[in-house]
Amino acid sequence: MNADAVAATLVAQEDRVRARLDQFIRLPSVSTDPAYAEGMHGAQQFLLSWLREIGLRDVQILDGGGHPAIYGAWTEAPDKPTILIYGHYDVQPPDPVTEWTSPPFEPTERGGCLFGRGASDDKGSSVIAIAAVAAFLQQTGRCPVNVKLFLEGEEEIGSPSLPAIVARYGDLLRADAVLSADGGRASPTVPTINVGARGNTGMEIKLTTAAKDLHSGKYGGAIRNALHEMAALVATLHDRDGGIAVAGYLAAVTPPTPLQRHQAAAFCVDEAEFCAEVGASPLGEPGYTLRERLTLRPAIDINGMWGGYTGASAKTVIPRNAYAKLTMRLVSGQNPADARELVSKHLQANCPAGVTLEFEMRQAGSPASSLPNDHPLVQAGSRVLERLWGKAPIPVRLGATVPITALFKKLLGIETLMFGFGLPDEDVHAPNEFFRLASIPIGLQGWVMLLDELSLFAPTAFTAATL
Amino acid sequence: MNADAVAATLVAQEDRVRARLDQFIRLPSVSTDPAYAEGMHGAQQFLLSWLREIGLRDVQILDGGGHPAIYGAWTEAPDKPTILIYGHYDVQPPDPVTEWTSPPFEPTERGGCLFGRGASDDKGSSVIAIAAVAAFLQQTGRCPVNVKLFLEGEEEIGSPSLPAIVARYGDLLRADAVLSADGGRASPTVPTINVGARGNTGMEIKLTTAAKDLHSGKYGGAIRNALHEMAALVATLHDRDGGIAVAGYLAAVTPPTPLQRHQAAAFCVDEAEFCAEVGASPLGEPGYTLRERLTLRPAIDINGMWGGYTGASAKTVIPRNAYAKLTMRLVSGQNPADARELVSKHLQANCPAGVTLEFEMRQAGSPASSLPNDHPLVQAGSRVLERLWGKAPIPVRLGATVPITALFKKLLGIETLMFGFGLPDEDVHAPNEFFRLASIPIGLQGWVMLLDELSLFAPTAFTAATL
Repeated sequence: MNADAVAATLVAQEDRVRARLDQFIRLPSVSTDPAYAEGMHGAQQFLLSWLREIGLRDVQILDGGGHPAIYGAWTEAPDKPTILIYGHYDVQPPDPVTEWTSPPFEPTERGGCLFGRGASDDKGSSVIAIAAVAAFLQQTGRCPVNVKLFLEGEEEIGSPSLPAIVARYGDLLRADAVLSADGGRASPTVPTINVGARGNTGMEIKLTTAAKDLHSGKYGGAIRNALHEMAALVATLHDRDGGIAVAGYLAAVTPPTPLQRHQAAAFCVDEAEFCAEVGASPLGEPGYTLRERLTLRPAIDINGMWGGYTGASAKTVIPRNAYAKLTMRLVSGQNPADARELVSKHLQANCPAGVTLEFEMRQAGSPASSLPNDHPLVQAGSRVLERLWGKAPIPVRLGATVPITALFKKLLGIETLMFGFGLPDEDVHAPNEFFRLASIPIGLQGWVMLLDELSLFAPTAFTAATL
Repeated sequence: MNADAVAATLVAQEDRVRARLDQFIRLPSVSTDPAYAEGMHGAQQFLLSWLREIGLRDVQILDGGGHPAIYGAWTEAPDKPTILIYGHYDVQPPDPVTEWTSPPFEPTERGGCLFGRGASDDKGSSVIAIAAVAAFLQQTGRCPVNVKLFLEGEEEIGSPSLPAIVARYGDLLRADAVLSADGGRASPTVPTINVGARGNTGMEIKLTTAAKDLHSGKYGGAIRNALHEMAALVATLHDRDGGIAVAGYLAAVTPPTPLQRHQAAAFCVDEAEFCAEVGASPLGEPGYTLRERLTLRPAIDINGMWGGYTGASAKTVIPRNAYAKLTMRLVSGQNPADARELVSKHLQANCPAGVTLEFEMRQAGSPASSLPNDHPLVQAGSRVLERLWGKAPIPVRLGATVPITALFKKLLGIETLMFGFGLPDEDVHAPNEFFRLASIPIGLQGWVMLLDELSLFAPTAFTAATL
């Protein structure tokens, strides 16, 4: 029974895959908020029982001190490569909940799309990857390659326990390469293959101007206001054109190579259309195209900012504290710790006397990642996509971050191909996240074919390519 | 029985006054938040029954469509002036509740101070004023002047219904002058008399950059971020020295007169000490002393600002919306509507294409107020304070706003003397608000003596002085 037949049978049973996905979305596995502990536990149990059911061995919880990862393996093909299959079961918070058309944890189909928190990031693609492995095992009794499924529970909070998990379970996780179900497609109509991603890191900033909140009538015009100071500081991060204005920040950035700029141009995106789709207004570093700004240039964004009275009507207070959450998207040449240091130093340097800043560096972060065009993962992935679409995929880089790419490189010494099937407009991290139902059969075929393609390479080919 | 004897007897019964105040503070009458409807109702009932108990006539609820005012009168001295006594029973929200040492609505005595929301603003001074009237009626069967007690329920939200109440109950409220229990003392050690206050107005700003919240990896570096835009706009409101930088704003402001600057200097406040007391850092318009900046110059403050993800840990989102609440303290020459217009025009002018601003002008606001030094209210008040303290009071202006001062001038054509006994450090509008217990006997004596002093003037003297 060849891979095409396996894929055809699996696609014919698509409703079963969909049922799994619905069940998975119903479990509110928000990793960032302790209030969702039950949802996290539910998602773990869901995965454990599914992985056992399809015949994987060593199915277990990998505990690194935080939210655990879920693991299961099939390793009965001694001469074949061993592929670590990565996905994550945690999701972003559903806030603001009131902006959802249907409840965030009730999978709801509308217009060919499945709405629900995590549908696109990353439960949809994770279910596809597991279903592909299950199809081989159930239909043929074996897999074309050795597989080790690894479903993380802390992707949305920067994978704080992943180093501890890999250190503790390094033997279990040993593999020749990683296939990630996270990190999606760049276009619904043009085939693309992911060859890199920006890194990220972040911090929370607390600003203090006084020992207490003060009456704006009795003190207004005489003292510093924490919100004015925070606004002034945030305004120093970018110039008027949207370029990063943090002192020394761009000096560390490796300029894009001609090949990178060529590949960025090959994936043609109309900036006006890109912005109009989400009602946004373009802004960014001059001298770079939209795709270059999104994938080859760094970005700094305030993700949340607050202080003072935010309730109904008015309260005439001069707040003593202001807060901001800040994340950075990193590119080649940037190190997460150095990037944070540059931003915090810049803010300190722009902070007037009498105002204190505190930084909480919660996220270790991860650097940008890059996969050589001639790596077996890229070769195999490209062949699969070419067969699926009838034309060769364009190598693209992601603006978003898949921290495990850098982590697996650092901790296990192996490369990762992001082979998710989410699309960029699926409102990941926002209200009304959805996953296109049409991506399910394509994804199932793609994963079945890719596992088969990878079996053509010698196990040593994967690491040799990047030595 | 003379006024001194009435005062002495009243002060000897101070514990009864204190019991009323405790009872009053326990009623959580927060006007800005509908969740406190029961507390508002409780405070209304408390006042209605107390005013009836002390023998006032016409005790009733004055309804203007919002939170009603409470009214009661004694008008049996036909040749004497009629004094409208103003106080307010509503209080600020207790947020942030976690910063209170004792529960905000449980009056708690510590170190000679009574802690509780509204203790200083304005339940303490309102109770003192009512108790002074009660003392005359109970001890002498009459009052030295005609009195009309008027306790408002919307002072903390800008008195939106007050014009409607005055229009509907104008006959009932007709008086020669107003004594306000709101608008406190400037110093615990130096006697001062209030001769003016800044006005105020405000608005809420909503900023939108996109049709939805977006993923900071997929869009970071390519589009506008609502929080960056809000920060940039807020930063345009002031120059680096803290002066107001709103285009055209200061042109409308009447420069302080030499007499005003002289009086501001007479009330000596050490800027470093003033700031150190609350751990604040001084900042404000160059060329003016602290007292001038606080009372004779306008101020603009952001009271609350928020947008994006503000929960635990991180969420990598580019927010589509940012919000800010802004209030302005107004001085002579400024009109609330024009001031708002200048700020909104300035913000619009600084707002880049693709970013939309919406303004909610909820508060009508009130202009600054001024009382001539030779007005009977100032003369009588000064004599009382000189007798209480053994030295003449310094005329001072308030940085804060008592909107009714301007409203009564506009709607009833009469002047107001602010004769509250709160002190500037009593954390009004902030956590751990308190009222000094030592202010109760001084306040009771002051109010009894002042009602007596005012009986020496002809009813016509009050309006003649400002014609």
